[in-house]
Amino acid sequence: MHDIIINEKILSKNMEIAAENRERLKNKGIFTINLISSPGSGKTALVEKTVEALKDEIKVAVIEGDIQGDLDTQRLMKFGIPVRQINTGRSCHLDAHMIRHTLPGLFDQGEIDFLIIENVGNMVCPAEYDLGEDLKVSVMSVTEGDDKPLKYPAMFHASNYLLINKVDLHPYTNFDLERAKANALKMNPELKIFETSCTEGTGIEKWIDEMRGKLADKPKD
Amino acid sequence: MHDIIINEKILSKNMEIAAENRERLKNKGIFTINLISSPGSGKTALVEKTVEALKDEIKVAVIEGDIQGDLDTQRLMKFGIPVRQINTGRSCHLDAHMIRHTLPGLFDQGEIDFLIIENVGNMVCPAEYDLGEDLKVSVMSVTEGDDKPLKYPAMFHASNYLLINKVDLHPYTNFDLERAKANALKMNPELKIFETSCTEGTGIEKWIDEMRGKLADKPKD
Repeated sequence: MHDIIINEKILSKNMEIAAENRERLKNKGIFTINLISSPGSGKTALVEKTVEALKDEIKVAVIEGDIQGDLDTQRLMKFGIPVRQINTGRSCHLDAHMIRHTLPGLFDQGEIDFLIIENVGNMVCPAEYDLGEDLKVSVMSVTEGDDKPLKYPAMFHASNYLLINKVDLHPYTNFDLERAKANALKMNPELKIFETSCTEGTGIEKWIDEMRGKLADKPKD
Repeated sequence: MHDIIINEKILSKNMEIAAENRERLKNKGIFTINLISSPGSGKTALVEKTVEALKDEIKVAVIEGDIQGDLDTQRLMKFGIPVRQINTGRSCHLDAHMIRHTLPGLFDQGEIDFLIIENVGNMVCPAEYDLGEDLKVSVMSVTEGDDKPLKYPAMFHASNYLLINKVDLHPYTNFDLERAKANALKMNPELKIFETSCTEGTGIEKWIDEMRGKLADKPKD
């Protein structure tokens, strides 16, 4: 019970800071997504594909959230875009405060149209911590089991998009795509679902086009 | 900073209760393992295989930790063994307090030799919360990426065993088994590693034999 009271206080403070982040990002006309998933669902590969497809059209930047290390940041350096690493230490999620402190350094690296935040791999707490993003994007891979939306409802409930990733591995698993989608939609009927594979390129163009549409809708000063 | 102080207090209280749990389990001669992994690594399938192999030799019981629902408990009911479900609500990990409250109900269901606790799917916080177990067992699947030990060091550091699971999918991934093992051993040179597949049965007998050895070592009143 005591833990829950502490948690509510932390979450309420987080919401305040997230609202400030949202205002700052909006003022700069930056469209921001927050990628949430279990470790190993292929978030970083999706970020690579998205950056690769859009970097010559618009200005993309990335914030990488990890407990420790900068392996993902290193993977993204090859694109020559602004990337900032946040190491959360023992915290299992990014929070709005971490993002607030990261934005100035990112803004110093030049104009940004599209900011991708890759959260720490965790299906639970990242869903509760608003960072100031425009949209939350959940990722699950077909190797994780089609019951995950029923077991980790908050993530699916909080998200605008769900990418069902690694569909190239689908033939080798007992994952039921239709059941997974039905389970996800049970948690959130508004969820827009894409099936993707970064190794075979399946669904990537459709996903990028969706982001292009969102970017076109974003007012730029 | 404030979060960290709160967290230290919670962790210190958790350690006290975990020590009490450990004493109670020891007094009953129960050998206990705590299974930790990312969501979708195949923990429940491993529990099924382990229960199936051992249930006619010894008395096995299971505690299932999930945010919500009892899907995994339902999967285990077919074995006719004592199973208790803990729903953590918004908490991303089991803690010693939850286990303390679950043990009496489990003990009421009869004698136990081997208790398997399946933690909430999360590579971060479960590593920090001692439950009173004898051994921690980490599970990672070959679809998650061989860099995971470098990104989630605490789980590998805290564990006695690592099961690299779903090796049947290995041919279809770019997962480097040797690199994964080297990364895990870098985090914890004492880690004992097994390669397993629940769909093809690979390595399961070896794993069960290891548990048989541990159970034989456990003094029974």
